[in-house]
Amino acid sequence: MTGRLQEEKVFKDPVHRYVHVRDKLIWDLIGTREFQRLRRIRQLGTCYMTFHGAEHSRFNHSLGVYEVMRRIVNNFEGRIHFTDEERLLCLSAALLHDIGHGPFSHSFEKVFHTDHEAWTQQLIRGDTQINSVLRKVSPDFPDYVAQIIGKTYKNKLITSLISSQFDADRMDYLLRDTYYTGTNYGSYDIERILRVMRPYNNMVVIKHTGMHAVEDYIVARYQMYWQVYFHPVTRSAEVILQKIFQRVKFLYRHGYAFARKPDHFLTLFDQSISLDEYLALDESVVLFYMSEWCKEKDDILRDLCDRFINRRLFVYIEHDDRIKDAAWKQGIEELFRKAGIDPDYYLVEDSPSDLPYDIYGVSEENGEKTPIYLLMPSGNLEELSLCSPIVEAISGKRRFDHKLYFPLDLLEDGTRESEVMNKIKHMLRI
Amino acid sequence: MTGRLQEEKVFKDPVHRYVHVRDKLIWDLIGTREFQRLRRIRQLGTCYMTFHGAEHSRFNHSLGVYEVMRRIVNNFEGRIHFTDEERLLCLSAALLHDIGHGPFSHSFEKVFHTDHEAWTQQLIRGDTQINSVLRKVSPDFPDYVAQIIGKTYKNKLITSLISSQFDADRMDYLLRDTYYTGTNYGSYDIERILRVMRPYNNMVVIKHTGMHAVEDYIVARYQMYWQVYFHPVTRSAEVILQKIFQRVKFLYRHGYAFARKPDHFLTLFDQSISLDEYLALDESVVLFYMSEWCKEKDDILRDLCDRFINRRLFVYIEHDDRIKDAAWKQGIEELFRKAGIDPDYYLVEDSPSDLPYDIYGVSEENGEKTPIYLLMPSGNLEELSLCSPIVEAISGKRRFDHKLYFPLDLLEDGTRESEVMNKIKHMLRI
Amino acid sequence: MTGRLQEEKVFKDPVHRYVHVRDKLIWDLIGTREFQRLRRIRQLGTCYMTFHGAEHSRFNHSLGVYEVMRRIVNNFEGRIHFTDEERLLCLSAALLHDIGHGPFSHSFEKVFHTDHEAWTQQLIRGDTQINSVLRKVSPDFPDYVAQIIGKTYKNKLITSLISSQFDADRMDYLLRDTYYTGTNYGSYDIERILRVMRPYNNMVVIKHTGMHAVEDYIVARYQMYWQVYFHPVTRSAEVILQKIFQRVKFLYRHGYAFARKPDHFLTLFDQSISLDEYLALDESVVLFYMSEWCKEKDDILRDLCDRFINRRLFVYIEHDDRIKDAAWKQGIEELFRKAGIDPDYYLVEDSPSDLPYDIYGVSEENGEKTPIYLLMPSGNLEELSLCSPIVEAISGKRRFDHKLYFPLDLLEDGTRESEVMNKIKHMLRI
Amino acid sequence: MTGRLQEEKVFKDPVHRYVHVRDKLIWDLIGTREFQRLRRIRQLGTCYMTFHGAEHSRFNHSLGVYEVMRRIVNNFEGRIHFTDEERLLCLSAALLHDIGHGPFSHSFEKVFHTDHEAWTQQLIRGDTQINSVLRKVSPDFPDYVAQIIGKTYKNKLITSLISSQFDADRMDYLLRDTYYTGTNYGSYDIERILRVMRPYNNMVVIKHTGMHAVEDYIVARYQMYWQVYFHPVTRSAEVILQKIFQRVKFLYRHGYAFARKPDHFLTLFDQSISLDEYLALDESVVLFYMSEWCKEKDDILRDLCDRFINRRLFVYIEHDDRIKDAAWKQGIEELFRKAGIDPDYYLVEDSPSDLPYDIYGVSEENGEKTPIYLLMPSGNLEELSLCSPIVEAISGKRRFDHKLYFPLDLLEDGTRESEVMNKIKHMLRI
Repeated sequence: MTGRLQEEKVFKDPVHRYVHVRDKLIWDLIGTREFQRLRRIRQLGTCYMTFHGAEHSRFNHSLGVYEVMRRIVNNFEGRIHFTDEERLLCLSAALLHDIGHGPFSHSFEKVFHTDHEAWTQQLIRGDTQINSVLRKVSPDFPDYVAQIIGKTYKNKLITSLISSQFDADRMDYLLRDTYYTGTNYGSYDIERILRVMRPYNNMVVIKHTGMHAVEDYIVARYQMYWQVYFHPVTRSAEVILQKIFQRVKFLYRHGYAFARKPDHFLTLFDQSISLDEYLALDESVVLFYMSEWCKEKDDILRDLCDRFINRRLFVYIEHDDRIKDAAWKQGIEELFRKAGIDPDYYLVEDSPSDLPYDIYGVSEENGEKTPIYLLMPSGNLEELSLCSPIVEAISGKRRFDHKLYFPLDLLEDGTRESEVMNKIKHMLRI
Repeated sequence: MTGRLQEEKVFKDPVHRYVHVRDKLIWDLIGTREFQRLRRIRQLGTCYMTFHGAEHSRFNHSLGVYEVMRRIVNNFEGRIHFTDEERLLCLSAALLHDIGHGPFSHSFEKVFHTDHEAWTQQLIRGDTQINSVLRKVSPDFPDYVAQIIGKTYKNKLITSLISSQFDADRMDYLLRDTYYTGTNYGSYDIERILRVMRPYNNMVVIKHTGMHAVEDYIVARYQMYWQVYFHPVTRSAEVILQKIFQRVKFLYRHGYAFARKPDHFLTLFDQSISLDEYLALDESVVLFYMSEWCKEKDDILRDLCDRFINRRLFVYIEHDDRIKDAAWKQGIEELFRKAGIDPDYYLVEDSPSDLPYDIYGVSEENGEKTPIYLLMPSGNLEELSLCSPIVEAISGKRRFDHKLYFPLDLLEDGTRESEVMNKIKHMLRI
Repeated sequence: MTGRLQEEKVFKDPVHRYVHVRDKLIWDLIGTREFQRLRRIRQLGTCYMTFHGAEHSRFNHSLGVYEVMRRIVNNFEGRIHFTDEERLLCLSAALLHDIGHGPFSHSFEKVFHTDHEAWTQQLIRGDTQINSVLRKVSPDFPDYVAQIIGKTYKNKLITSLISSQFDADRMDYLLRDTYYTGTNYGSYDIERILRVMRPYNNMVVIKHTGMHAVEDYIVARYQMYWQVYFHPVTRSAEVILQKIFQRVKFLYRHGYAFARKPDHFLTLFDQSISLDEYLALDESVVLFYMSEWCKEKDDILRDLCDRFINRRLFVYIEHDDRIKDAAWKQGIEELFRKAGIDPDYYLVEDSPSDLPYDIYGVSEENGEKTPIYLLMPSGNLEELSLCSPIVEAISGKRRFDHKLYFPLDLLEDGTRESEVMNKIKHMLRI
Repeated sequence: MTGRLQEEKVFKDPVHRYVHVRDKLIWDLIGTREFQRLRRIRQLGTCYMTFHGAEHSRFNHSLGVYEVMRRIVNNFEGRIHFTDEERLLCLSAALLHDIGHGPFSHSFEKVFHTDHEAWTQQLIRGDTQINSVLRKVSPDFPDYVAQIIGKTYKNKLITSLISSQFDADRMDYLLRDTYYTGTNYGSYDIERILRVMRPYNNMVVIKHTGMHAVEDYIVARYQMYWQVYFHPVTRSAEVILQKIFQRVKFLYRHGYAFARKPDHFLTLFDQSISLDEYLALDESVVLFYMSEWCKEKDDILRDLCDRFINRRLFVYIEHDDRIKDAAWKQGIEELFRKAGIDPDYYLVEDSPSDLPYDIYGVSEENGEKTPIYLLMPSGNLEELSLCSPIVEAISGKRRFDHKLYFPLDLLEDGTRESEVMNKIKHMLRI
């Protein structure tokens, strides 16, 4: 066992006021290089290009998730018994749930087919500082933490505190992303939610008196998705980022002579990347390479990097049946090619269903997110959307939100054949 | 002239709620690559290692300074007449006042003897996107903006809005740094301050009814300096950073064979750096190199970079006459050398008087900061510290706050001769 | 015309930071006795018995409504032309819209059949300080203000700013009631709403980009209704208050010899009350009488007043078909009578549909509240609930929320025949 | 003993988020009529005439003091042992410390020579609901609570939590009054203060690392005194209130035939007031009488009441040696008399040293307020003002702030002899 700190330590936190650390285990985990690396990965990827305040890191958020978990565990005292190991398991899993994230994680995963949850587990089980700190609790402890992340741990209640409708992760990020973006959309009364959460068999349910507080929380999520997480400007930056990664991979495979060779990414291309090589990837590395590639002679790579670094983003059209029309799509791509603009890189369809966020009731198919139950005075459970018309309205409805992104400036720079340009503009109705 | 935007644009800002842009000039300046670069330079340097929330960039802050200036100029309407060019001058200078900052600016300047204000002026006058945007107002306009930064502009009132006790810079950063650190120390009633600011000849004075509001502002600054800006943990990270830069310079000059050569810094070493090379320097570049140097074979460089990247900081002793005692200092340095720990890198004196912040009344010697005057009912001016005992108490008092930083872990790792170690510990009283 | 103040005056306001007054007219209106009287009438009636923070007055709120209107009018500049008289009309109507409220207005109106909007108009048109201040603008000006309150004014746009889905009244009270209760439910981004409001013919519509901000505002209202305005504890206090007024009226009509005669209420009983008598009624008067009536010999009046003054409220049963069952109702009333507890005063049905709040789309029948329209890029209007599933979910749905209130303590004090009591408890399932 | 509640109850509180009640004793005390009476007495007396937000009651504040005390006691766990009775003693004394306050307490006490602390003790020891609730803990318990209020209780540490520089009372009211007035002056980091408070023998000291947090707290108090509590407009209303009470007393003693006899005040005049009569006095009663007295035929009483009710306040001159000059004072009084304006009621000197607030170090003479000590790393104590120049600057300095209040409107209404008026205006320099 790792014991208590002699004196409680705190981190001043804008969202939870203070993050309280009393366990030596937690203090030591925060000090590991794998955890410190999260300072160099932003919580919201490219969102800072839309909301300039959103520059906070996953380090910042991870401390918050830990603090929320600490409060949940405290509140459950008297209702359920956690052993000291179980308590530490909850706290460690909360703190470490994001350590496997790569730089600009969403685009990164999409292009390189990595999986941050798998990496989180590997980092916990592998030859890392985190592993050796966790191992001090007990030899099996790292594995238990990894199982929670992988949702295979025997105690489903603990797993649900990390991954469910009321997990510590979401409870923190709504408030934190609201705070840093400066919007009000994600705020909800966390203290009331904490007060009405009840352990119930293998899951967390909500005391019926908290119904409206939960509605508020669900609506907060809904608003954050549409106002912040799925913001089309943020997605435009993601689209460019993906195309950069795609281009680098393509150029490398076709033997292009880089002025700045993508050394840090090579093992990623053939999926032979080691744990240490993965850890070496962070957003300062990605930004460094992109700055360098602004000087490459490959037109596409150079242009895309310049767009990302200097925030010259794509525009989009939306709400449009054309986007789903294959013939129309083929036609516009043809015209782009005629104009000398490669549609593989400059005409990009994007949909938030590709995004790693789900709204209440939407992502049930993969089985991992459970519905929310209210604990009624009778002792029975009732599913929230049956009681709340407002949740029912949001629940499970997939919004059609395909957008087609392209660089308006290229179409308007006057260097291309005007007849083709006119046809393109006509088709895009711009 | 550059004219108005068709429709006002806004940025959602956590501190001022919204940043309002109505002038095409301002919109275009924000879009330049030199301004976008500020996204890659943190406002508070290494402060995020102490306050994890303080990850905000100079981009973030610069928009805020612009917004404060916009409000000041609005409030002055009716009291003083600014021509449209003067108005744009105020706004541009506010927006651009920080573009010359380098990465981790304070340490950077200290080691490489650069001056961010000089660079700001060069960037405004040189061959940059900013210059060509500014030039659209009038051929002399860039020069006027640069003069304001250099405090040589003919209209001293405008200069004072950028650099004085009540400049837009300070008025923004107190609130912003408070917001992001999550402390309450720097908050003050900016709307009231804006309401009591009065143009008076060449300067801004404060209507006497606002005396307590100004006290609150001065105390907010005082508190921020001691609680945030001069925080010893932040300074510890700065100390390490300076020593990294110093070591790289040293190794380069002595022909050390870098595994990762400091290409981006070479022209900096001999002070032949060009404008484009300077612009290429940002914090992702510095962090990239430091991550790479964690693998160098030079023990000192490798260790210092590892300390910075993984936040293994120095500790300190303070409030101690020994630090100022040359003989004592020489003794302890001698012992460090005996122990095989180079005191040039591992025994570092630091004092906040080296820091670029000044408290009310402290930095008068360089003549650039003017005192605060209250505009009395009689129409006379009175200097604030004569009216306010609380300001008088703070005013002009230089606090002795030398600290001596060193790596406690190296002294305790048990690999060194115990007799020497004991002597060191005895001298340091640890 | 009444002109501008020499220097702007401000009120420090927790919700809008500052309330700005630049017109002498507004300053003078605030100084009238009829407006100052609003300091003695609480904004949320008995809500302070549920949320102890909700002690704010209608004076407090009225200043806020004025300030919101001032900002709306400012924002409309450039989009629509208001003459100076129209501007003052907007501001005056906003400031004065609540001056006709009586003490504990909702219960008061229900028992005494008064109508605060009619009184507001009478006070504006009658022999009052307000009338003589308004008259200084022009002889017809008071009448115009009264017409806006009565919704008969020719300019429907101006009327809609006082009474519609986006009137200054609601925009203020959501934020203010949220602030004082300490809940977060009613907060929404007022600055964004102000930015997307557009005058459009006779009404205010919302620019389509503001759709989610409007959703947030509608959900804020929905949450405030259920969490604050319709709170069953507040309604319990209202029920008791109504029964006190009803008892006093009854006793007076039946010649009861009051120890403290209800002098202030006599002309109210026969609906002959004069303007001055109406103005003399405020909450300090009502509380004074209730405190005195705690010493009356009539058991019911004395008990009810003691319940109100010392917050010994009724409890309730709800969600229950029995409440709507006439036979069941008659049975329980019978038993109350047998037990010597008068069901006219101690068994009270209450429903929020009696309450003066309406949720989006609910109160259309009376024709006064218009739907919300979005202004689409095409220039067409679309009704909000057709675009927003979340608003559609809330819209127009009347919730069954009848409750039956009664004094649990009387049923449990052990002084009554136990057989009857058991029957009562059985029927009430308590 | 009174035991725990089955389930924790909470009050939603804007300042502390939630007030948590776990003890049946506390719940029952809140339900007593003596405690509910505090809902009818405002926390800041006439301050709402200056800051319209400041309408909160002593009930509101008292819950907050209880909550602060609950947190202090929680934080002390592990450092010091409180028995369960001692814990309840702390909580009860915190909750009840204000129950002896009369309506508009400061003016009330000044004119009627009552003492709210003495009344608090009488209410605790006397035949009240509070007494019978407290008695359930133990027969001596009410007396212990009263002793804490009277500062005669044996355990000085507990007394100091109710009355010292860091008592729960001040810690709550600074934050609360700041919140309701909407100013920022009184905000400080209460969580940090709670974390650095240490029980040390008979008092509470502050861990040295909290020095700047304490400075912030002291400056917050200083700012609130000058910006809010001593605000000249609030004092103007207090002056009028005192003169009303004085006039009523005078008229009664001289056999004036009141239209509305001051029944509620009669035993107060001859200081024979009983406990029940005292409890019957609240601000609705005072406001009721004042409204009634607006119709009295006595010119002075009628006018003063009209001024208070309709907020037609006195103006003032200040910072003036004349005010202290007896000859000048006599001269101006003489002129007032000549003009037919009774200077006993219409020319009033006021000084904040009459006010019940003390700034750090000012009120030591009465021995009840102790200095603040820092607990140094050495284990020694150091007095705060010796370490902090900012506190030293504020400490113990009595500010000369005499003001002379008078009704400007009476001097300008044109009904009086112009020569006398001119002389008055000349002397007052208005």
